[in-house]
Amino acid sequence: MTGHVAVVGLGLIGGSAAQTLVAQGWRVTGWDPDAPTRGLAREAGVEVVPTLEGLAAAGASIVVLAVPLRAVRSTVERLAPVLPESAVLTDVASVKEPVRDAVRAAGLDRRYVGAHPMAGTEHSGFAASDPELLRGARWALTVDPTTDLEAFLAVAGMVTSAFAGVVHPLADAVHDEAVALVSHVPHVVATELLNLVVGSPVSEVAQGLAAGSFRDGTRVARTTPRRTQAMVTDNAAWVSAALRLTARDLVALADTLDANGSTDAFFDRADVLRAGGAAGETRQTVEVVLDDGWQHGLAERGRQGARLVAVDAARRSVVLSEALPTPQAGSAEA
Amino acid sequence: MTGHVAVVGLGLIGGSAAQTLVAQGWRVTGWDPDAPTRGLAREAGVEVVPTLEGLAAAGASIVVLAVPLRAVRSTVERLAPVLPESAVLTDVASVKEPVRDAVRAAGLDRRYVGAHPMAGTEHSGFAASDPELLRGARWALTVDPTTDLEAFLAVAGMVTSAFAGVVHPLADAVHDEAVALVSHVPHVVATELLNLVVGSPVSEVAQGLAAGSFRDGTRVARTTPRRTQAMVTDNAAWVSAALRLTARDLVALADTLDANGSTDAFFDRADVLRAGGAAGETRQTVEVVLDDGWQHGLAERGRQGARLVAVDAARRSVVLSEALPTPQAGSAEA
Repeated sequence: MTGHVAVVGLGLIGGSAAQTLVAQGWRVTGWDPDAPTRGLAREAGVEVVPTLEGLAAAGASIVVLAVPLRAVRSTVERLAPVLPESAVLTDVASVKEPVRDAVRAAGLDRRYVGAHPMAGTEHSGFAASDPELLRGARWALTVDPTTDLEAFLAVAGMVTSAFAGVVHPLADAVHDEAVALVSHVPHVVATELLNLVVGSPVSEVAQGLAAGSFRDGTRVARTTPRRTQAMVTDNAAWVSAALRLTARDLVALADTLDANGSTDAFFDRADVLRAGGAAGETRQTVEVVLDDGWQHGLAERGRQGARLVAVDAARRSVVLSEALPTPQAGSAEA
Repeated sequence: MTGHVAVVGLGLIGGSAAQTLVAQGWRVTGWDPDAPTRGLAREAGVEVVPTLEGLAAAGASIVVLAVPLRAVRSTVERLAPVLPESAVLTDVASVKEPVRDAVRAAGLDRRYVGAHPMAGTEHSGFAASDPELLRGARWALTVDPTTDLEAFLAVAGMVTSAFAGVVHPLADAVHDEAVALVSHVPHVVATELLNLVVGSPVSEVAQGLAAGSFRDGTRVARTTPRRTQAMVTDNAAWVSAALRLTARDLVALADTLDANGSTDAFFDRADVLRAGGAAGETRQTVEVVLDDGWQHGLAERGRQGARLVAVDAARRSVVLSEALPTPQAGSAEA
C-alpha cells in the first residue's frame, strides 16, 4: 500500500514521518514555515511547496499536521477553506482533546483521526529527523462518534503499513489520561525530585551521595525543561488530577510512617505489575468488520488493551490483537 | 596501612567488606548467625568464629556491624559487656540516627563512627558479595560531639586505604535527611508511579503506551518492594517530611495548572543542577589538623560538600577536597 501524503511542519516528527513515507515509496508533499527547513526536506526527497495553501492544493489523500500544539488552531483555520473534501486530516501531537477541539471548531472533525506516535528524541528540527524514528513504534489513534470510517481506515492503513506501527485505537480522553500517567506525571515527578534537592539545606551532601536510583529517577528532568513544561501544560487537566492523586497518596504514606503503621498496602499495591506481566499473557488475533457505531466499540476494545495490527479497507475491517483472559487469578496485566 | 577488623554479619555488604579487606592484606575475623554463611566466608579467607562473643574477644581494632538495622540494638547490647576498651565500632547501615541511638544506649557511643557505603546491588547474602562492590565507593562517615578522634581516624583510615573510598564526613541528621532526598523518596515516588497506573481506569492503555520516561522512573520500584519498605521505614521521620514537601509542591503545581498560571518557577527551579554543575567547578585539597571541637567543624565542612580523601593518624590530620567558589554567578553545585 502506498499513497500521497501532505506533511504540515517538517520538524523532528514531521520530518521523520516524511522521510519514512518517502523511503517506503509514498509520494510526500511538505511545507514548513522555515525556509532552510524546506531546503533540507527537499534534499531528502520531499516535494516541498512554498505555502500552506499550496500544500492543501497538492492533491494528497492524507494531511498530517506536525506543527507544535500552539500552532494547531491557526493552521487548521487556514486549511479548512482550501482543503479538498476528499482529504483526511491527522496529526502527531502528544495530547488529543485540544487538537480535536481545534479541528471541530474549523468544521473538519468528521475526517479527522487523532494520532500520537510513541517515539521521539530529546532533539528537535528536521536535521534531527530520522526515517527510522517512527518505524515499528506504538501509535495511539483516536476517534470520536463522528469519525468517518474511510478516514480512519486510511490513517490506520498508513500507520500499519508505511510505519509498521502497532495501533492502540482509543477515545481522546482515554489517551490523554493514560499519557498523563505514563509520561507527563513521571516527568513532573522527576523535576520535583531535582527541586527538592535544590531547595534543601543539605543540598550539597544530597548531590554528593546521589546514586543510581536518583540518576534514573531524574534523567528525564535533566535536559531543558521547556519540552516537559509544554507537554504538561497542553494536558493540564489530566496531569493536574493525577498530581492531586499522587499528593494524596504520598501524604497518606507520610501519615502512616509518622503513626508507625503498616505500609504494606502502599508497597504491595503494584505487585500485579511486578509479577512478570506480559510474559504470562496469551493473545489472540481477530478480524473485526467495522459497522455502524464502530467508533465506540473499537475505542472500548482499545481501552481494554486491544492493538490494531492490520487494515483491510476493501472489507472495511481491521485485525486486532487482544489478550485472552489468563487462568491465573488476579493477573490483570495486558 | 593494614590492621585487624572484625565483621559482624556476613551478608552482601558485610561479606563484601570482609573480602575487600582480605584482598587488601588485612586480617579479618568474621561471624554470622547462619552456619552455611560462615562456611562460605571461611572459604573466602575470613577467620570465622562460631559466636559473637568469640568475635569480640578476637582482638580486632575495628568492629564493623553489618547486621540488618532491626538486629543492631540486640547486637550492640550483646557486644557492650565483652568488647575490649580499645576496639572501635562502626557499621554499614543506610540510616545513622537509629544506629547511634542504639550504640549510645549500650554505652559505646564515644568509640562509634557511623558509616554508610553508597554502593549495593539488588541481591543479598554472602553468595552475592564481591570484593570490588565497595572499592572506590563514596562513604558517609558520621560523628557527633562525643566521637573519639582516634576512633574516627581509624575508621576513616580503613575506608580511604583498604576501600579506596571517598568520605563525606557528616552529622547523623544531615546524612539521614540527604539520603531521604536522593534515595528513599525517589524509591517511594517510583512505587507511587506504578500504583497510579494499577489504580487507574485506563490501566491497560497506560501500560501499553508506557515509554522510556516511565521505565526509568519506575525501575527501582519493579523489584521486590520489601527492601524499599525497610529503608523507608528505618528513616521514617526524614522520609515523611520530604514526602509532605513533595505533596505540597505537586498540589501547588496542580493549582497553577488549573488556574492556567505560569509554571516557570516549578520547571526552572533546578536549573542550577542542569547547568553542567561539577564540570565547571574547581576543587582544592587542604590538610586539616583535628583539634578540640573537630567533630562539629569537620561535619560542617562535610555539609558544605567537603570530601575526606586521606588520613594521617600520626599528625592527627585529614586531607579534604573542597570546592572553590566559582566566578560564575548563581552556580551553586558542588
